[in-house]
Amino acid sequence: MAPPVRLDPKSEVPLYRQLHAQLRERILSGAFGRGGKLPTTRELAGRLGVNRATVAAAYALLEQEGLIRGHVGRGSFVRTPGEASLDWEARLRGAGVEARGWGGGARINFASARPGEDLLPVEEFRACAREVLRGDLERILRLGSPYGYGPLREWLLERSRAEGTLRDGDDLIITSGCQQALDLLGRTLARPGGTVAVEDPVYPGLRDVFAGAGARVAGVAVSADGMDLEALERLIEREELAAVAVTPDFQNPTGAAMPLAARQHLLRLARAAGVAVIENDIYHGLRYEGAEQPSLKRLDEHRLVIQVRSVSKLALPGLRVGWLTGPREVVRRLADWKQTADLHSDHLSQAVLLRLFESGRLETHRRRLIDAGRRRLQAVLEGCAKHLPEGSRYTRPQGGANVWVRLPEGLDSERLLARAEAAGVSYLPGRLFAVQRVEASALRLSFAGLDPALIEEGMQVLGRIFRREWQKIRTSAEAGLAPAIV
Amino acid sequence: MAPPVRLDPKSEVPLYRQLHAQLRERILSGAFGRGGKLPTTRELAGRLGVNRATVAAAYALLEQEGLIRGHVGRGSFVRTPGEASLDWEARLRGAGVEARGWGGGARINFASARPGEDLLPVEEFRACAREVLRGDLERILRLGSPYGYGPLREWLLERSRAEGTLRDGDDLIITSGCQQALDLLGRTLARPGGTVAVEDPVYPGLRDVFAGAGARVAGVAVSADGMDLEALERLIEREELAAVAVTPDFQNPTGAAMPLAARQHLLRLARAAGVAVIENDIYHGLRYEGAEQPSLKRLDEHRLVIQVRSVSKLALPGLRVGWLTGPREVVRRLADWKQTADLHSDHLSQAVLLRLFESGRLETHRRRLIDAGRRRLQAVLEGCAKHLPEGSRYTRPQGGANVWVRLPEGLDSERLLARAEAAGVSYLPGRLFAVQRVEASALRLSFAGLDPALIEEGMQVLGRIFRREWQKIRTSAEAGLAPAIV
Repeated sequence: MAPPVRLDPKSEVPLYRQLHAQLRERILSGAFGRGGKLPTTRELAGRLGVNRATVAAAYALLEQEGLIRGHVGRGSFVRTPGEASLDWEARLRGAGVEARGWGGGARINFASARPGEDLLPVEEFRACAREVLRGDLERILRLGSPYGYGPLREWLLERSRAEGTLRDGDDLIITSGCQQALDLLGRTLARPGGTVAVEDPVYPGLRDVFAGAGARVAGVAVSADGMDLEALERLIEREELAAVAVTPDFQNPTGAAMPLAARQHLLRLARAAGVAVIENDIYHGLRYEGAEQPSLKRLDEHRLVIQVRSVSKLALPGLRVGWLTGPREVVRRLADWKQTADLHSDHLSQAVLLRLFESGRLETHRRRLIDAGRRRLQAVLEGCAKHLPEGSRYTRPQGGANVWVRLPEGLDSERLLARAEAAGVSYLPGRLFAVQRVEASALRLSFAGLDPALIEEGMQVLGRIFRREWQKIRTSAEAGLAPAIV
Repeated sequence: MAPPVRLDPKSEVPLYRQLHAQLRERILSGAFGRGGKLPTTRELAGRLGVNRATVAAAYALLEQEGLIRGHVGRGSFVRTPGEASLDWEARLRGAGVEARGWGGGARINFASARPGEDLLPVEEFRACAREVLRGDLERILRLGSPYGYGPLREWLLERSRAEGTLRDGDDLIITSGCQQALDLLGRTLARPGGTVAVEDPVYPGLRDVFAGAGARVAGVAVSADGMDLEALERLIEREELAAVAVTPDFQNPTGAAMPLAARQHLLRLARAAGVAVIENDIYHGLRYEGAEQPSLKRLDEHRLVIQVRSVSKLALPGLRVGWLTGPREVVRRLADWKQTADLHSDHLSQAVLLRLFESGRLETHRRRLIDAGRRRLQAVLEGCAKHLPEGSRYTRPQGGANVWVRLPEGLDSERLLARAEAAGVSYLPGRLFAVQRVEASALRLSFAGLDPALIEEGMQVLGRIFRREWQKIRTSAEAGLAPAIV
């Protein structure tokens, strides 16, 4: 047997840490043997004359280090040497966000909200990149500013000024896509314990940045006209908000767009309550029908709005460049965080994007995307009308990449997905987008990456699967049986 | 006068929020007038029969919204309309990290720890980028994986396996430079309230990621052999550590490198205490003298070490590509955070880096850098010996970019910097690198970006300024006077 454990109550080292250190030494020296059993916490506490919680705390540390393993009802055992010395799983438990891995493998992929992946601007990109390579590369290779690559930033500032989105006291920072802009905003504006309002359902990457920052994320319902502003007003009355994040154009996943009056109303609410507005304007410029609406940033006279944009939805998702416009005080703080996060965004891609803008090639490409998008939107809406089971509802967006489908109550989109994928079609189940309100029968159809013939084919397949299941449920309901769900 | 405030103690809306809403309405309707004074909290609390803290909380909200402004001793006043409706400065107070803006403007710039900015591999980069543009661009433009651009990741996995740094159960993720790898580790491993040990002094970007994640950052002194392992051991006895982050080769700012025995000792300590080790291996491959030491990751038999590398110190700082190797459980969690942070790193730069590796051009360039670095290191050490005031101490690194100088006690490197910059020479004062222990007389000389002639010239200038000041202090001390510091 090893020498008895000796604890010194006068030491500045807490008792549980003294105990932990001595037990650790014994375990590592093999005193308990391979897989040996440790005394129970009650037993050891009694023997040492200490509180049982002290022993439990020491055991918890040993377990976290992977030295022992607790088995409910059986006690604690020394882990076999050669096992990992750190129990990484235990250590990482609760360490923030979890991965999202869904869809994408099927032949007809309604799962990716990316317009026109078959319409990648490959030649435009190649030409612009070649032009960049003929120029001054030293500036590209040198360490840069957290605010972004100077020449691109100048160009964006100029354009934002001309557009009316950059106002007195505003500034602009380039980020690695919209996602990073949102993440930096989460780290800057969303304090642990604070509340951020978002649409419900919403793009999970938007929900997760604020949740990851420790904020409470409060979902506000979305109609065809965007966030339900009466619900937002009630929320504001109940709770102080750190910010409200909205996607006024072609919200992901619903495709909703806010009319002008709703935009103005939102700004009035935000002004009265002193709430910062984060405008996720990622689908900017991708309207296929109807009249363009001014962005919230453009309408804002009171420095409330922070606007986030990128080109990833212009079929350049691999080019991780986005930018943010907002009050200078905010942008300065974001730049501090940006420096901590990754110093600055990659220069080469920023230089190529600048050429894409300057040369007009991106605008030509955008027009091509809009023509294609219009036909695809039409195809998906026709497919919904023709093939979905009776009683289904779906949104009718005027741009962007997504239609939100609500199947009749009782159908579970997540369970039906396996059948759809077996038939070569994928989509994303509504659950993924839930903030508080789970819509089990809903699903997102992302249409912008598929040509109309594939859309029609995919909708036929989905329609058949959904209608058959709906038929089954209704038959059993009519027969007085409990509905069988898949 | 506006109608009297009415509070409903039975409402589920807290009293201070009811009061806040009613006062807000009155302010916005102009009831108090432009710049009008609100009742004191004592007065209003008495009038309403509520606790004074309730009124203070309502006022605090109004102030945060920018509707009122408090003046100490004078009371609270309505802000003039037209002022910003959100007091961004108030809202952002304490929102994490602050910017670091130092040095860089001077002709002889000892402030930037970047080897050979005059040795940028411009032609190698141009050639590789052109080769990339001749290939398949669709993969580059498409949305990618948070783990990184597939072909580069395969190449790095292969090389790490061959090198012995990638072991069974390990995985690899590509990040936007080392800085992002550290930031993701901060978000994953460093919990608020947890402790992370780092060298003291240390690169501020390393200290800030853990502090930004809410962890306590504990500084451990550094000698020529790296982190003081006895001090680390005492820290481990006192406190549970979430991780220890070390730079075993050419630590920034001291240039210290750990001998083999110290590396092994650190791993034993970490194993016994169950502490994760973050190896910041950013100066990897930049040794000018002495024998290469195996990395901690290579020596680690127990899955304790997470290794971070990049090419930014190979004179490609504008190319934001780094990578991390570590236990698969950790890498998976980092990938989740990476997706939240920016989805994935830019593809184009990853593709160019792969060509730089594959073509051997980066290795050729590295050899050139090492030749240059050796001459520069020699020049700065000679300059220190010749020009620094008597009693100065300085490190003697064998690689990397930095020498750490300790001027005689009484000289303040931050105050002297203004004089140096006026004479065209910059460096970074020691204070910037402090974790707990501030060394006011220390400074960092980054030599790798300057050719030997400029180094000698810069050291002459610094030596003159430092010696003159030191002479003054000694003279006044000998005359029995209090030392005048700048």
